[in-house]
Amino acid sequence: MKQFVVIGLGSFGISLAKTLYEMGNDVLVIDKDEELVQSMAGLVTHAVRADATDENVLKSLGVKNFDVAIVAIGKNMESSIMITMLVKEMGVKYVIAKAHNELHARVLYKVGADRVVMPEKDMGIRVARNIFSSNLLDLIEFSKDYSIAEILPIEEWFHKTLKEIRMRERYGLNVIAAKKMNNEIIVSPGPDYVVDEGDILAVCGKNIDIKKFEIKM
Amino acid sequence: MKQFVVIGLGSFGISLAKTLYEMGNDVLVIDKDEELVQSMAGLVTHAVRADATDENVLKSLGVKNFDVAIVAIGKNMESSIMITMLVKEMGVKYVIAKAHNELHARVLYKVGADRVVMPEKDMGIRVARNIFSSNLLDLIEFSKDYSIAEILPIEEWFHKTLKEIRMRERYGLNVIAAKKMNNEIIVSPGPDYVVDEGDILAVCGKNIDIKKFEIKM
Ligand SMILES: Nc1ncnc2c1ncn2[C@@H]1O[C@H](COP(=O)(O)OP(=O)(O)OP(=O)(O)O)[C@@H](O)[C@H]1O
Ligand SMILES: Nc1ncnc2c1ncn2[C@@H]1O[C@H](COP(=O)(O)OP(=O)(O)OP(=O)(O)O)[C@@H](O)[C@H]1O
Ligand SMILES: [Ca+2]
Ligand SMILES: [Ca+2]
Ligand SMILES: [Ca+2]
Ligand SMILES: [Ca+2]
Repeated sequence: MKQFVVIGLGSFGISLAKTLYEMGNDVLVIDKDEELVQSMAGLVTHAVRADATDENVLKSLGVKNFDVAIVAIGKNMESSIMITMLVKEMGVKYVIAKAHNELHARVLYKVGADRVVMPEKDMGIRVARNIFSSNLLDLIEFSKDYSIAEILPIEEWFHKTLKEIRMRERYGLNVIAAKKMNNEIIVSPGPDYVVDEGDILAVCGKNIDIKKFEIKM
Repeated sequence: MKQFVVIGLGSFGISLAKTLYEMGNDVLVIDKDEELVQSMAGLVTHAVRADATDENVLKSLGVKNFDVAIVAIGKNMESSIMITMLVKEMGVKYVIAKAHNELHARVLYKVGADRVVMPEKDMGIRVARNIFSSNLLDLIEFSKDYSIAEILPIEEWFHKTLKEIRMRERYGLNVIAAKKMNNEIIVSPGPDYVVDEGDILAVCGKNIDIKKFEIKM
């Protein structure tokens, strides 16, 4: 269980916060709109009405102790930039911010965002690339039992091939891709692919099978 | 090469249209804003300034002959609903519409949309589920060389196991999931999985390897 704070309850912030909570995490949401805050009661751990550009508010809520902050404000760029900077300065390890356009995105990275999301643009690319698919992968991604995730190999896999490890039979995992230490990406590695210590593996399988290998931050 | 018409040039419509064009498709974009239309010159096949709620406009542009229409209007629900209905009535086979909220989505399905996308909400779920990943799959999805796609099995695969087919060695494809005729989904099918005639297979591999098996509409 990780601690998340989601600032801004637009469609993006709401669905993100609800999903994180459903996944078993501790989720605090903040918005300056009282009605929106009330509508989240029971759907997240805590919902607070506040202006997040106020540093004292963030301090009194203990934001610095959270593992991840998501700044889900799009239209009000000024606030989104200020809040992103504040939470990063306070020491939140991982900050995700939503951008309205490319320029906004660049500023967010400059002030400390670890990841910037542009939902409309990103979904445009995604839908284009998957237009003729029947959304099998979305079904997996949105399913409660299965996931596609990234894991770190355990010691007993080091320097063995996928065949030797018997990844599918013993671990129920299908390796879709591997990222080497030098950032090289091996897509669809064959049975003779040798797992290295520094690898990150993208796998598909049951949540209970994946959980055992989850990447810890 | 397919023919696409994208109506509405917000962030979603723009990135969708550009990506479809980059993928080698024929793309017509329509928006009532002259400046936006001009900014698409050279980035798509045709860009036309017009009000798409006008049935005569859609007829004169030959919209009924397009394979896919994407109605990428969010805020103006009335227009988005009218246009979705019009293009479907005209005979466009596959209509994707963008919704602003759940109610809007339901109306769009009722008037004929084949798929409804809610970029902010969908990305909220997606980001929540992938929060600790290093985005290996996004790298694949956004790469020009590799894809994750859905394919139909060819005749010589019918009733054979993945091991017998030697899917990875001979075809360079990694089968991530299979959807049976009865809609059952087998995630991460093992080497002994028997491919059936009615299966849809989600695979990962090089674009050139996948292209051979692409699902035709
Ligand atoms: N300084 C702030 N402190 C707290 N909440 C804020 C602050 N500024 C904006 N918000 C909240 O952020 C939420 C989302 O903001 P905004 O409307 O800009 O996002 P959006 O990208 O337009 O989302 P959507 O398109 O879903 O409406 C709003 O509910 C707003 O009340
Ligand atoms: N009837 C219409 N005919 C043609 N274009 C239209 C029509 N109605 C709206 N549009 C265009 O659709 C585009 C997107 O509309 P809208 O602003 O509602 O979408 P949006 O979801 O808010 O997108 P974004 O958030 O990226 O601004 C606008 O550029 C607008 O000019
Ligand atoms: Ca899942
Ligand atoms: Ca919008
Ligand atoms: Ca928006
Ligand atoms: Ca790709």
